[in-house]
Amino acid sequence: MTTDVIADMLTRIRNANQRYLKTVSMPGSKMKLEIARILKEEGFISDFIVEGEAKKTITITLKYQGKTRVIQGLKKISKPGLRVYAPANEIPQVLNGLGIAVVSTSKGIMTDKQARSTQVGGEVLAFIW
Amino acid sequence: MTTDVIADMLTRIRNANQRYLKTVSMPGSKMKLEIARILKEEGFISDFIVEGEAKKTITITLKYQGKTRVIQGLKKISKPGLRVYAPANEIPQVLNGLGIAVVSTSKGIMTDKQARSTQVGGEVLAFIW
Repeated sequence: MTTDVIADMLTRIRNANQRYLKTVSMPGSKMKLEIARILKEEGFISDFIVEGEAKKTITITLKYQGKTRVIQGLKKISKPGLRVYAPANEIPQVLNGLGIAVVSTSKGIMTDKQARSTQVGGEVLAFIW
Repeated sequence: MTTDVIADMLTRIRNANQRYLKTVSMPGSKMKLEIARILKEEGFISDFIVEGEAKKTITITLKYQGKTRVIQGLKKISKPGLRVYAPANEIPQVLNGLGIAVVSTSKGIMTDKQARSTQVGGEVLAFIW
């Protein structure tokens, strides 16, 4: 798994969000699509689209409520130099449920809640709140 | 322990911080002073002062870096209807160490890091990040 690619994704979203940009684009990958899907399902972004054939581009539409950013923060947890894995019964909560953890499991990329209810552990990729 | 008083304190700080106010005042109490002390020690606020004799008032000076709030968020964890206690080996981390948990222990009010190093558990009052 190329963790740096996820760090890059989070940084792009963080920077665009900080500047109240409407959309942010980046080179696509399967894992980034999965993360975008979770962000949309969890209400953190309005939408995302994928364009291009060989070289795919993901464009994410950020979400604001007036001057308030719906995404308050993003933090990479597992890193190339320090992988963070959690068994099913130790999947972390983010801010007591205010945010989500994105977990890479044998059953796909999912939120901390999904990992707990599926009773599957995995690599804790990121916190979003 | 009057947890509502802490909720009131966090709400006042949150509202003042949201509006970029320089200071925020509130009725004083021993526990609020302890929390203010931790906020100062951890760099979340610039300072706090206590005024008055019988009725004390705490005034907290908030901290900003240009347009960036040093306090990004505050969340009450233990509540009158749902107390949250953690043994020493299960004191929660906040955003993987980006924030702090304020824990009320038999050895006083302290941060999650202090509780872990003191090896003492307690009531998890709040998360600040």
